[in-house]
Amino acid sequence: MTALSVFLDVPPAQKLEGSLLKIYKQDDSSKKMFLAYKVCMTQEGQPWVSFVVHKIRLQLAQDPSLNYEYLPVMGMKSFIQASLRLLFGKHSQVIVENRAGGVHTVGDSGAFQLGAQFLKTWRQDSQIVYVISSQIEHHGFIFQDMGFTVFEFSFWDPEQLCMDSNMLFSVVKQAPYGCIFVIGNIDHCKMTQYQWTKLMATMKRKRIFLFFDIPYQGLATGDLEEDTKFLQYFVSEGFEFFCSQSLSKSFGIYDEGVGILAVVTRNNQLLLCVLSQLMNFALALWLNPPTSGARIITSILCNPALHEAWKLSLREVAEHLLLIKEKVKEKLRLLGTPGSWDHITNQNGTHGYLGLNYQQIEYLVKKKHIYIPKNGRINFTCINACNIDYITQSINEAICFTKSSGKKKTLQKVDIS
Amino acid sequence: MTALSVFLDVPPAQKLEGSLLKIYKQDDSSKKMFLAYKVCMTQEGQPWVSFVVHKIRLQLAQDPSLNYEYLPVMGMKSFIQASLRLLFGKHSQVIVENRAGGVHTVGDSGAFQLGAQFLKTWRQDSQIVYVISSQIEHHGFIFQDMGFTVFEFSFWDPEQLCMDSNMLFSVVKQAPYGCIFVIGNIDHCKMTQYQWTKLMATMKRKRIFLFFDIPYQGLATGDLEEDTKFLQYFVSEGFEFFCSQSLSKSFGIYDEGVGILAVVTRNNQLLLCVLSQLMNFALALWLNPPTSGARIITSILCNPALHEAWKLSLREVAEHLLLIKEKVKEKLRLLGTPGSWDHITNQNGTHGYLGLNYQQIEYLVKKKHIYIPKNGRINFTCINACNIDYITQSINEAICFTKSSGKKKTLQKVDIS
Repeated sequence: MTALSVFLDVPPAQKLEGSLLKIYKQDDSSKKMFLAYKVCMTQEGQPWVSFVVHKIRLQLAQDPSLNYEYLPVMGMKSFIQASLRLLFGKHSQVIVENRAGGVHTVGDSGAFQLGAQFLKTWRQDSQIVYVISSQIEHHGFIFQDMGFTVFEFSFWDPEQLCMDSNMLFSVVKQAPYGCIFVIGNIDHCKMTQYQWTKLMATMKRKRIFLFFDIPYQGLATGDLEEDTKFLQYFVSEGFEFFCSQSLSKSFGIYDEGVGILAVVTRNNQLLLCVLSQLMNFALALWLNPPTSGARIITSILCNPALHEAWKLSLREVAEHLLLIKEKVKEKLRLLGTPGSWDHITNQNGTHGYLGLNYQQIEYLVKKKHIYIPKNGRINFTCINACNIDYITQSINEAICFTKSSGKKKTLQKVDIS
Repeated sequence: MTALSVFLDVPPAQKLEGSLLKIYKQDDSSKKMFLAYKVCMTQEGQPWVSFVVHKIRLQLAQDPSLNYEYLPVMGMKSFIQASLRLLFGKHSQVIVENRAGGVHTVGDSGAFQLGAQFLKTWRQDSQIVYVISSQIEHHGFIFQDMGFTVFEFSFWDPEQLCMDSNMLFSVVKQAPYGCIFVIGNIDHCKMTQYQWTKLMATMKRKRIFLFFDIPYQGLATGDLEEDTKFLQYFVSEGFEFFCSQSLSKSFGIYDEGVGILAVVTRNNQLLLCVLSQLMNFALALWLNPPTSGARIITSILCNPALHEAWKLSLREVAEHLLLIKEKVKEKLRLLGTPGSWDHITNQNGTHGYLGLNYQQIEYLVKKKHIYIPKNGRINFTCINACNIDYITQSINEAICFTKSSGKKKTLQKVDIS
């Protein structure tokens, strides 16, 4: 008699990655296109790689002085320092006062996994997390799986077609004392100095813990400093926070999945305690982070000429991105598509809202084989000279053939399962 | 008034990595040496790198056909398949029957972290883990932090100076029904066919779940198949199990930290269920595993000429290792050191027990600046022509100047904190 399988009770997992991509791949239509790649695409429809990276790869492969020993748990020190300087600026008070530190993290989830494990253990009185909707799919899961109560929020107003600071204020107002906010570039709200002061005062009073997400520094505006300027506001107000800085996208080394979990504390002593605890978690998570990606990035960041060349490549991407957005807007105007399309160029970064409602998106996916996520947030670099006409004509069709039913998005508890 | 720090209650972490290495680094003595590197060392005292790796690195850096897009959560498919073939042999029934699979994992801990998360969720009735003492420091922590009850065991008999299958039998006999065993190459016990049959029958009857650890296939005996032969016994008896296969050491790409968590199930349907659940955990852990290491390994494994060259480099390491062990034994004999030293050459692999007791080890660390872990398990490749005389003379001294108090090691509950 054969004993039963150990795994008899294990069902297939329900929540699988990239279900939209999966449906796209199964689509046989020759017209099909996918507008939701995470990766920044070139005009030729290939993943963008900064031109300095190829050179460095070759240089590193030929360097006889490199050793291939294990990195310490904390990761590559020079990489962490270079990343922190990039994030805060080398003259930032948190760097000068030695109260910003980081742990080298792995993949796109690593920094959130590490930070969430820390918060689970060391902030047991506040296990409520608000996650910005653009990051809910991946980061929301991480917190949810660890037992946090996760709420989704957005400050994109689908009626006004803009980032609305009032929506952010309203979420902060409702949020319970001591909760955690996972948020990207708040600056996209374009707040006044008065609004900034008010927002930070409320957050401080409610002891909201901020966990920032910088997934592609330099690719939002083409200016590295501009993309993280908002962090300085929090630094100057004495906030303590976590920040996931994923650097793979900014260099086009997506397959290396490398970044840091940056930590800002009140003083160096607190920083050392937090980092030592984070190291314990990293020890169990991966023990030694892989080096390749960190080595490529550090080689570029620590060489002034290469650093400048890299910055130039980022500016080129940003310029090209703006051009695409302008063209999309122009083509929609020429087609007489109803509505203003200024929101396309008003949004920074590779990813942004098209400003379509659910029915319009469904029309594009089902009738036109243009794959767009339900929230209508696309990667504008997926649009190029070859597909722009089909895309804009299809958007025009979608709008003309469906009725607008733009419902205001309200705050809701996440139920991803 | 400034509010209190968010991190006020966070103490510095106690259990830090590599405390022995830390003490070694702080030692000012010019004689100091460290015999516990994880890495296989060359005769020149440098981390060993298989000569095929350099060539491949250069080739990959120059290959214009490569793309650097994100890997899927499961990792690099060709890498997983090549790793499974290496582990089981391409004609193994688990491969032919499509019931062995794997997930690409990160760092030295990744596979255990992933496997432990699965077992925590899907084997809730058996949260007791027995971890082989050589792996207790790292893998024990992972299970312990997740709430498993962890016991340490060993089948190294410090009196007989050999791997003793009776010790293994006794542990298996005591272990509760359904518990988990984290274990390396059981074959080191050198059991008879009768003993193997008996061991597997007992494990099967007690529904013990095996989680194998293959940290350096090919470096134990120099023969890839020989190093995983024991897995075939379990395969042929229809066991379902997990296996962490860390491949970085076998290629000398320590800093890439790459491996797989291999899964063997009763049939393909069960395998797909288990892999889909593992993917969910990987999604939250790192989302996309880094590629470099996997790419290097796959390029070598999938090219017959390079594969052969790599196997040759492994045989060279194994031959060199045996030579060192022979020399250590010979030198100790010439010094008239009491005791038989056959146990040095009887043990396979880079790491093995010196067969010293606690006082002798303390003597070597404190008086001779030779850093050896408390369990006396050293990396024999740390011994080379430059240091062999000092090391053997010091061992001789340690034995002559201290009294033997070799206490039989008994099974104990781990208390690492």
